[in-house]
Amino acid sequence: MDFQHSARSLELQDRVRQFMRTHVEPVEELYYEQVKPEAARYKTPQILQDLKRLAREQGLWNLFLSGEHGPGLSNLEYAPVKEIMGRILWAPEVFNCSAPDVGNMEVLANYGTKAQQERWLKPLLEGRIRSGFSMTEPQVASSDATNIQCAIKRDGDDYVINGRKWFTSGAMNEDCEILIVMGKTAPDDPDPDRHRQQSMILVPKATSGVRIVRDMLTYGYDDAPVGHPEIVYDNVRVPAENMLLGEGRGFEIAQGRLGPGRIHHCMRLIGCAQRALELMCQRSVSRVAFGKPLAEQGSVREDIAHSFCEIAQARLLTLQAADKMDREGNKAARDLIAAAKIVVPSMAARVIDRAIQIHGAAGVSQDTFLARAYVYARFIRIGDGPDQVHLAAVGKELIKRGGVMG
Amino acid sequence: MDFQHSARSLELQDRVRQFMRTHVEPVEELYYEQVKPEAARYKTPQILQDLKRLAREQGLWNLFLSGEHGPGLSNLEYAPVKEIMGRILWAPEVFNCSAPDVGNMEVLANYGTKAQQERWLKPLLEGRIRSGFSMTEPQVASSDATNIQCAIKRDGDDYVINGRKWFTSGAMNEDCEILIVMGKTAPDDPDPDRHRQQSMILVPKATSGVRIVRDMLTYGYDDAPVGHPEIVYDNVRVPAENMLLGEGRGFEIAQGRLGPGRIHHCMRLIGCAQRALELMCQRSVSRVAFGKPLAEQGSVREDIAHSFCEIAQARLLTLQAADKMDREGNKAARDLIAAAKIVVPSMAARVIDRAIQIHGAAGVSQDTFLARAYVYARFIRIGDGPDQVHLAAVGKELIKRGGVMG
Amino acid sequence: MDFQHSARSLELQDRVRQFMRTHVEPVEELYYEQVKPEAARYKTPQILQDLKRLAREQGLWNLFLSGEHGPGLSNLEYAPVKEIMGRILWAPEVFNCSAPDVGNMEVLANYGTKAQQERWLKPLLEGRIRSGFSMTEPQVASSDATNIQCAIKRDGDDYVINGRKWFTSGAMNEDCEILIVMGKTAPDDPDPDRHRQQSMILVPKATSGVRIVRDMLTYGYDDAPVGHPEIVYDNVRVPAENMLLGEGRGFEIAQGRLGPGRIHHCMRLIGCAQRALELMCQRSVSRVAFGKPLAEQGSVREDIAHSFCEIAQARLLTLQAADKMDREGNKAARDLIAAAKIVVPSMAARVIDRAIQIHGAAGVSQDTFLARAYVYARFIRIGDGPDQVHLAAVGKELIKRGGVMG
Amino acid sequence: MDFQHSARSLELQDRVRQFMRTHVEPVEELYYEQVKPEAARYKTPQILQDLKRLAREQGLWNLFLSGEHGPGLSNLEYAPVKEIMGRILWAPEVFNCSAPDVGNMEVLANYGTKAQQERWLKPLLEGRIRSGFSMTEPQVASSDATNIQCAIKRDGDDYVINGRKWFTSGAMNEDCEILIVMGKTAPDDPDPDRHRQQSMILVPKATSGVRIVRDMLTYGYDDAPVGHPEIVYDNVRVPAENMLLGEGRGFEIAQGRLGPGRIHHCMRLIGCAQRALELMCQRSVSRVAFGKPLAEQGSVREDIAHSFCEIAQARLLTLQAADKMDREGNKAARDLIAAAKIVVPSMAARVIDRAIQIHGAAGVSQDTFLARAYVYARFIRIGDGPDQVHLAAVGKELIKRGGVMG
Repeated sequence: MDFQHSARSLELQDRVRQFMRTHVEPVEELYYEQVKPEAARYKTPQILQDLKRLAREQGLWNLFLSGEHGPGLSNLEYAPVKEIMGRILWAPEVFNCSAPDVGNMEVLANYGTKAQQERWLKPLLEGRIRSGFSMTEPQVASSDATNIQCAIKRDGDDYVINGRKWFTSGAMNEDCEILIVMGKTAPDDPDPDRHRQQSMILVPKATSGVRIVRDMLTYGYDDAPVGHPEIVYDNVRVPAENMLLGEGRGFEIAQGRLGPGRIHHCMRLIGCAQRALELMCQRSVSRVAFGKPLAEQGSVREDIAHSFCEIAQARLLTLQAADKMDREGNKAARDLIAAAKIVVPSMAARVIDRAIQIHGAAGVSQDTFLARAYVYARFIRIGDGPDQVHLAAVGKELIKRGGVMG
Repeated sequence: MDFQHSARSLELQDRVRQFMRTHVEPVEELYYEQVKPEAARYKTPQILQDLKRLAREQGLWNLFLSGEHGPGLSNLEYAPVKEIMGRILWAPEVFNCSAPDVGNMEVLANYGTKAQQERWLKPLLEGRIRSGFSMTEPQVASSDATNIQCAIKRDGDDYVINGRKWFTSGAMNEDCEILIVMGKTAPDDPDPDRHRQQSMILVPKATSGVRIVRDMLTYGYDDAPVGHPEIVYDNVRVPAENMLLGEGRGFEIAQGRLGPGRIHHCMRLIGCAQRALELMCQRSVSRVAFGKPLAEQGSVREDIAHSFCEIAQARLLTLQAADKMDREGNKAARDLIAAAKIVVPSMAARVIDRAIQIHGAAGVSQDTFLARAYVYARFIRIGDGPDQVHLAAVGKELIKRGGVMG
Repeated sequence: MDFQHSARSLELQDRVRQFMRTHVEPVEELYYEQVKPEAARYKTPQILQDLKRLAREQGLWNLFLSGEHGPGLSNLEYAPVKEIMGRILWAPEVFNCSAPDVGNMEVLANYGTKAQQERWLKPLLEGRIRSGFSMTEPQVASSDATNIQCAIKRDGDDYVINGRKWFTSGAMNEDCEILIVMGKTAPDDPDPDRHRQQSMILVPKATSGVRIVRDMLTYGYDDAPVGHPEIVYDNVRVPAENMLLGEGRGFEIAQGRLGPGRIHHCMRLIGCAQRALELMCQRSVSRVAFGKPLAEQGSVREDIAHSFCEIAQARLLTLQAADKMDREGNKAARDLIAAAKIVVPSMAARVIDRAIQIHGAAGVSQDTFLARAYVYARFIRIGDGPDQVHLAAVGKELIKRGGVMG
Repeated sequence: MDFQHSARSLELQDRVRQFMRTHVEPVEELYYEQVKPEAARYKTPQILQDLKRLAREQGLWNLFLSGEHGPGLSNLEYAPVKEIMGRILWAPEVFNCSAPDVGNMEVLANYGTKAQQERWLKPLLEGRIRSGFSMTEPQVASSDATNIQCAIKRDGDDYVINGRKWFTSGAMNEDCEILIVMGKTAPDDPDPDRHRQQSMILVPKATSGVRIVRDMLTYGYDDAPVGHPEIVYDNVRVPAENMLLGEGRGFEIAQGRLGPGRIHHCMRLIGCAQRALELMCQRSVSRVAFGKPLAEQGSVREDIAHSFCEIAQARLLTLQAADKMDREGNKAARDLIAAAKIVVPSMAARVIDRAIQIHGAAGVSQDTFLARAYVYARFIRIGDGPDQVHLAAVGKELIKRGGVMG
């Protein structure tokens, strides 16, 4: 047992930290400024384009990918790097490491045909286009993915897609060209195995019948230039070869995709929480109330100490899940991943909320990153499966094993 | 002891409830639609103007005021009425019962000169103009109001005001014509009594030197058409008769104003929490996950039961504070008011947050009132004094009294 | 609506408070001293006998009972009196107001035959004997009372009882002469209505076959001289006229008994919590750490303020439940009673736990009443139905009513 | 970074686990039975003597010690072994690894003279005698150890000790022969450095003037045969060579002693929490309520899942602290040790409390280990420094470092 990161991970952490400090932190606000004009709302801002080029030149690119595409970091090595990127909400894209593109690239790399990879994976790897993942539906409890109703129907050499999705993250962006859509391939003839009714299919955003209805807000944010639109698929016709892996294999793909994705969200949120903790400390020495600095007030110190304890623990749990994925595979690590998914978003929301309180009115405003970060943390308590679903799954599994988790 | 409301209060509750159902609920969204266009952002929407006229015609107007201005409800009678209004975030203004106007009208009624009342109180009572309350400053911990730095300097027959304020609620609105500004009247010659350094003064928004710098966001919301702008007061000159009550009496006015204002916020938040509870119950029967309705899942039932228990308790505490104000005055009720201010915003945020979780993605979006209501509740944990300040005050007082509060 | 107690209740509160201060508080420890010797363990201590005589002389006796037996206080009037008695754990018996005797006396008064009343109610009302209530069983989840297995079988003119019970509070005491036992009257022929299988029957403790196996501890306390023994009923034969109300009516009796009993436990616990709050305040001014009194430390003040807020709210909720029982009956008040039962024991445990922390080692020891009071509060989170059962019931009912509780 | 234990630690874990299962678990209750008779109350029970001999024969002895005395495990290797021992509250002594003996042996090994080691360390290492640590005082807030008042006064070739201590763990036991006493060496001439006023001195329990006043209870437990008595030191005279390290060096010794001691308590508590989790899982499948096993009820699953997440995190944090002690020394690890001390006792109390709730009446009784384990966890929130002290220290340090802990 060893709590020190590998040399390779430490070196990469240093390089990414340096890049963040030098190039990203100074322009954090500029990014939001550049998308403020109505006309520029969902264009990729110039500053992001510049930073992507720079990061790619420096080899800080596609860090999660192995083989020809990237440095081949293990999950355990990649995780702390992701924490560093996570400190600025829009920074992961600088390194082509943002959701949902990372997950979509993994899906294409693992399950895509050569032709699918050539057409979509290649430009994604180069950061030339972006992608969306269209799963959640407004009419059903999508936390139980067997509820998903969107119809994907074979019709000759095509599939025809009809359904309504929302919170398709990234799909408002003008560079988003490809959507992975999950739906039922046999809605009228239910497979007795409810986990083989769903499929995933590639739908170019420009296809006729793909109608972006509106952008969804999260607590007042439209998250431009990314966006999470509601999309109607109205008799959308794509060639049969756009099917991923095969009919009825949507859950199989989803499972492969979700494990690492959850760890990435967790590490980004730990980055947010850590930054919130640092902001709390800084704020506490800069403000005086009732005759002494906040830093000398008992409840402020306790908030800071609790936050440290919670972050430190959540980080270790997430790293342990990453390590188990590396050693024994995503499936064996399922319960630890779920545990991290249960723990981290709540923890981050709580820590950030304390930081907001210590910042007073500034904390809820646009003058700190805190309110945005809170909303991200809060959203992830719902996204990728609400807390309750993971709690029930972990509880059930533990009971089966008598409370001992391998 | 009696837990039944008076006949007068019950009758008024019925009338307001009826008005809300018939006239306000059906147009809740229309209000936001009407202020969506950039050009209409901070205009009073037509629907609000119509509703105000209607409410006034029906005598549901200025309900908090006594004597010639209103029905003279006690705090205990007014509180449940305010809860009903509070269920829709923008509804209190329909009845001319919105913050900060209510507080400002009370200040003018209690401390204003005849001339000040004629010029500003009258149009406020008629709902023709709106007002702002300019207290919080970005550069200091305004939770300790003795920190406030804005300078109000006598110069001949005028006062000259220099300072920077933010979160001056309502001041973005085009109908806002008058600002009450708190500042130091003797910044260079500090009174040894730190609670006699501050004054309040009337500043017409149109005065030269009043510069609205920007609107402040709260978690992504600009709260149009109300707004909470940052305002620079740059050599703003007003006649000496605009001073309220007299130099150095700012705290005295603030104290009188804050008690009822806190109870009003609490009751509105209880209305929000109660509505969130009802939405949870409705949602839980409309959605099925993992083979059964949410309504039959243990953790959903527990969330609902806890929410009921917390709302019921918080409501009683707030009503008891209102009753004590009626019986023994605002000062005697200070600790109970602080207790309500400690309890209610946290409770409301917690209950609404549970409702968000049960609503999934819809809960964080614009499709329910939940995300906005959460932000209101969260903001009040900071506004009118952060939790920590009230906790410290109540704790100190209790220790003095050996734990027994009269 | 009125938050002032009635004159009659206030007067009685004063008298009981005075009695507690003068006669009970000074001998709080003496009571425990008198039962310390092994031989005296379950004898009624002399001091208690003396105090009972005195209280009876002063008319502070059977305060919960109406008609010929007592002053006929309403639940709302009795509740604050019970809070005052509750401040010392063994004090309610001084006034013949202790569990389970109060509940048993009510059962006998409401459902007993003349003969049963003459034989058992009379000496109980006079405080000459005590009683036990034998319901919970070690082998089944008794939180669901339909699980109860103890067999009560008709055999000629007798019933024969076989079963194992535990936590029969009071039954260790040498003055305990009568037990009310709940069991199945038709174990082999299950009534399709599971709520009509159980009956209650009177079993004199001296009956042959009633075997006290051992005393149960709660966290190290044997609660002498009261005790909560495990009892085996081994072919215990009692005359048929000992049946209460009739076969299959056990639930009916239980329901009538439980409502007021829960309110009484809640009020006693509020008394404990209030006393713990007062002890916290006293302690905080008597101890200095790290250069200043605890009273000036932020986290201590916050603990005290939170405790006050929680006690105040829980008290109001319990009083409202009592008021509803008075107005509309126990059944209509069921959900409010459950809400109080959910809220109060947890609240009391939390407040007392804070007081323990502020008292340091003294807090967990025999030198304050805190550890005992904590255990009482903690036990009531299980006794009379665990939290989870009440939460599920309240949640289910609220969902049915759309979140609106009359 | 590596989350696998070393081969040596794994092998030792296996051996200790095997020993616990084979020899200790079957006699868990027998231990308490053997000390039940009043006369045997504070004698070392025969079963413990037998097990100690057996463990020593098998080389499972003094596992925390290095060099000639033990296997020289690192803190990181020892920690998981301690977790296994911790599952039974009295088991650590079987392996001569119990508090306060371990700490006292370390003090003697590190700071004792040859003579002191010969006289006291040797029999302690052999498990022939036991020891006490006499620090906390009833009259002052001992959480701030500079408050300690016990006087240790030089008088010729002796020191004379006067003071009152309590919670001197282990000192009731008849095998306890030596006490380490902390007190002020210069009470009347306060050193300006408050951290150099205290000294530690060896006091044989048999010395004249050492008066055991009474045993202190914790929540009703006397913890026989260990005990935590109150001791009066009444003109107790010991030779000057009994001073440890030198006058005024008490804090220096305390610091060295406390770090590992806290980690040991944390690991024992993690063992308790883990066992409680396993008991919850077992219980949940054995009981049916309201028509289905507890194991299928949502809130039970959530309790179990939360408990797992909390235990897993707390264990990692504690192991990281142990690792840092090994790498960089106790002083560098101070903040991580404090973090573990903040997190673990609360976590264990919370998890055990959930297990109690799921066990119903059995959970609070003598029929499970839960109530005792809860009291141990709760006590450690006060012992070795209350939570508030550690929170304040960690908070202060973090603020100094801007929120970044190395």
